[in-house]
Amino acid sequence: MQENNTTKINPRLLSGFKDFLPKQKNQRDWLINQIKTVYESFGFQPLETPVLEYADILTGKYGEEANMMMYRFTDQGKRDVAMRYDLTIPFARIIAQYPELPKPFKRYQIAPVWRSDSPQAGRYREFYQFDADIAGSASMLADSEIIEIIYRSMIKIGVKNFNIRLNNRKILNGLLAYADINQTKANQVFQMIDKIEKISKENFRKILTEIVGTDSYKKILDFIQIKGSNTEIIAQLKHLFLANEIGLAGIKEIEEILANLELNKIELNKIKIDLSIARGLDYYTGTVFETVLLDAPEFGSIFSGGRYNELIGLFTNTDIPAIGTSVGIDRLFTAMEKLDLLPNNNNSASALVTVFPENPQDSLKVAQKLRESGLKIETYLGDKTNLKNQLSYADKLSIPVVIITFPDQIEKDNYIVKKMGQNFGETEQIETNFAKLAETIKKITTKKDES
Amino acid sequence: MQENNTTKINPRLLSGFKDFLPKQKNQRDWLINQIKTVYESFGFQPLETPVLEYADILTGKYGEEANMMMYRFTDQGKRDVAMRYDLTIPFARIIAQYPELPKPFKRYQIAPVWRSDSPQAGRYREFYQFDADIAGSASMLADSEIIEIIYRSMIKIGVKNFNIRLNNRKILNGLLAYADINQTKANQVFQMIDKIEKISKENFRKILTEIVGTDSYKKILDFIQIKGSNTEIIAQLKHLFLANEIGLAGIKEIEEILANLELNKIELNKIKIDLSIARGLDYYTGTVFETVLLDAPEFGSIFSGGRYNELIGLFTNTDIPAIGTSVGIDRLFTAMEKLDLLPNNNNSASALVTVFPENPQDSLKVAQKLRESGLKIETYLGDKTNLKNQLSYADKLSIPVVIITFPDQIEKDNYIVKKMGQNFGETEQIETNFAKLAETIKKITTKKDES
Repeated sequence: MQENNTTKINPRLLSGFKDFLPKQKNQRDWLINQIKTVYESFGFQPLETPVLEYADILTGKYGEEANMMMYRFTDQGKRDVAMRYDLTIPFARIIAQYPELPKPFKRYQIAPVWRSDSPQAGRYREFYQFDADIAGSASMLADSEIIEIIYRSMIKIGVKNFNIRLNNRKILNGLLAYADINQTKANQVFQMIDKIEKISKENFRKILTEIVGTDSYKKILDFIQIKGSNTEIIAQLKHLFLANEIGLAGIKEIEEILANLELNKIELNKIKIDLSIARGLDYYTGTVFETVLLDAPEFGSIFSGGRYNELIGLFTNTDIPAIGTSVGIDRLFTAMEKLDLLPNNNNSASALVTVFPENPQDSLKVAQKLRESGLKIETYLGDKTNLKNQLSYADKLSIPVVIITFPDQIEKDNYIVKKMGQNFGETEQIETNFAKLAETIKKITTKKDES
Repeated sequence: MQENNTTKINPRLLSGFKDFLPKQKNQRDWLINQIKTVYESFGFQPLETPVLEYADILTGKYGEEANMMMYRFTDQGKRDVAMRYDLTIPFARIIAQYPELPKPFKRYQIAPVWRSDSPQAGRYREFYQFDADIAGSASMLADSEIIEIIYRSMIKIGVKNFNIRLNNRKILNGLLAYADINQTKANQVFQMIDKIEKISKENFRKILTEIVGTDSYKKILDFIQIKGSNTEIIAQLKHLFLANEIGLAGIKEIEEILANLELNKIELNKIKIDLSIARGLDYYTGTVFETVLLDAPEFGSIFSGGRYNELIGLFTNTDIPAIGTSVGIDRLFTAMEKLDLLPNNNNSASALVTVFPENPQDSLKVAQKLRESGLKIETYLGDKTNLKNQLSYADKLSIPVVIITFPDQIEKDNYIVKKMGQNFGETEQIETNFAKLAETIKKITTKKDES
């Protein structure tokens, strides 16, 4: 067909996009499965929404900045559509669209989202989010459970050194009252607080002063710099807030969450009240949190989220409180790669059965019989059938065992099992009969996994 | 925040797009995992490519029709981009872009693709494909393995009544020689043969006659209507082809594949040579096949594919032969739903621990201890905490066991275990101590699964 096709298309990727070749794909699948196991142990159920939705739905609740980063276009039917930007808005749509779903509704979703952001370390234009949300409960038990699944996920994936930084929008609203700032400026102020670690002190002062004036700025700065143990921070807040109703309500919520977490045997020294945590999005109404890897803080917040009791109200007249968390899987993956916490999970076949042109039939038969015993078995399908090539193939794929076939082996019931070493060349070889073949392979592969 | 927001966004989906709520998502995940297990048992490894690619890459090898169905737009960086249309072209790009990948390279990919087609039963604009491909082998062992994994996947998912319809582009090229048709008309002719079951006989005759003339048309018609057992068809073909080199080469390939499949204990009566199978795409060069569910033929071809030895040449000067198959997961899912072959796989928690306002702490403790024993446990997080609501919640989620908490239960080491019945109301209730609690739950849930 292509004899005349001499100009080749350059095989390449868009900037900010990534291929996952088998090794990385297996490692990422491992990471996702670890977290999924934790979520499912609390009864969260999976859900999937489409990549493309009407743009008015997806842009419903984001600011101008988010809209600019959205992949949005007109489809063949002249509809204004966009690619999924996060998993929270589609979740809110689902809750409104299917009122028959039992409440509380606990779901997780693992799916890519797209943002036309500037690509940087661990930040891509296409990346996976892994969200868990609970809709239909205003109870602090839901907030505690969301914090708990983050904590248990971190432990499960092997990250020991992390902090979950906890705050509450009601406390921040209390701050507005305390600092004499009009509620209409809430979103602007919270967005600035959210940026405190990302911009210079001077810029922070300048912009915030423009919004609220010098006096209020100073009060904000003093406030978000309140440090100490959780107990100390709560004591100081109570002192500051006195009759500040909204602020005190926020404190009460945090106290309840911490008490629940303690009952569930969580190391409370990993849960830190941090008054500078605000989260940038407008829709949070209570609990907000971020999770930081203390050994790789440059990756920023990994698991984050909060309570959004009014977001679902975008789509329905029924009030449905909700809380959720989102993990940036690709950022977490890159961080864990850097911290060397990913398993060498190559997921290869347990054995390769060689194929020689003289007796390919025997190879097929042996492979088939071994697969029947539940083993993952490859037959060599390549065109270069000399033994060296076949061994080298097994080596490249980290296949730990090679069955070297030869004529009459089935009749003689004699099989050559070659154990592949770390160092190609230093290999062992044993002979066995078919009855013991599967067992022999299992023995070698189990040993290998342990080493 | 939203007190003044009275206009609601209508929660809705784009036509041809679908939400997967937990029940369906669990069932589809089951289906995907069954097939994945089969692919992995042959050593296929997972791979993932981005949803968005440069349009010139994705449109490389499709006809005008495909280009029109592609979701294609200009991104924020003025790049001409498109959404993934299938998984074969990205696979070809991967092989060209990473020449270091060991060959043969066997990969599977499960991912959604997008086509702006007219939505119809089991056909969506966003749908999952599940592809398995082998690059770097021209051996018929690779063709046999691809056919075998389709066969074993069908058996694994519980479809017993199916046919894999097998043909070879070399045989169809043999037909061109036999019917005196110029090779330049090959793609046009093969596309028409591919449509024979989709258009009227009269239209088929008319269009094909326009392309090749009356005499050649008659020869094509006679040819593709050759029926009989595989042996009979092969005998007739050999008789027709005599010195037709390309045609005879195709026959030899089919014979080799059938011989290999027989060795691998495949029921050969499910593998049918069918000379009317051509596949519409230009890029096939040898083996082509389609799979039909005989109890739901209206869903058309489920697993299909073939050998494409020149496609990777779009992206590189190195010749790399390849063969692959693609399953339309969503179409298969809809067909299996209709045939009632999907398991009632609700994946719910094993037990719900009730929560009452008097002693939520005890509920948390009990749930936590049970989770430690490896069980999936929900605590009731809702705001309506009367017992009836909590039991109704468990019922709706098909949670088989409810632990009814009461004050002092931990001190008294006494737990009430309620077994939920098919008929809500007809439930049993037993008392036990903590040591036996996890075991009791396991017993009840295992029994339930068996019933």
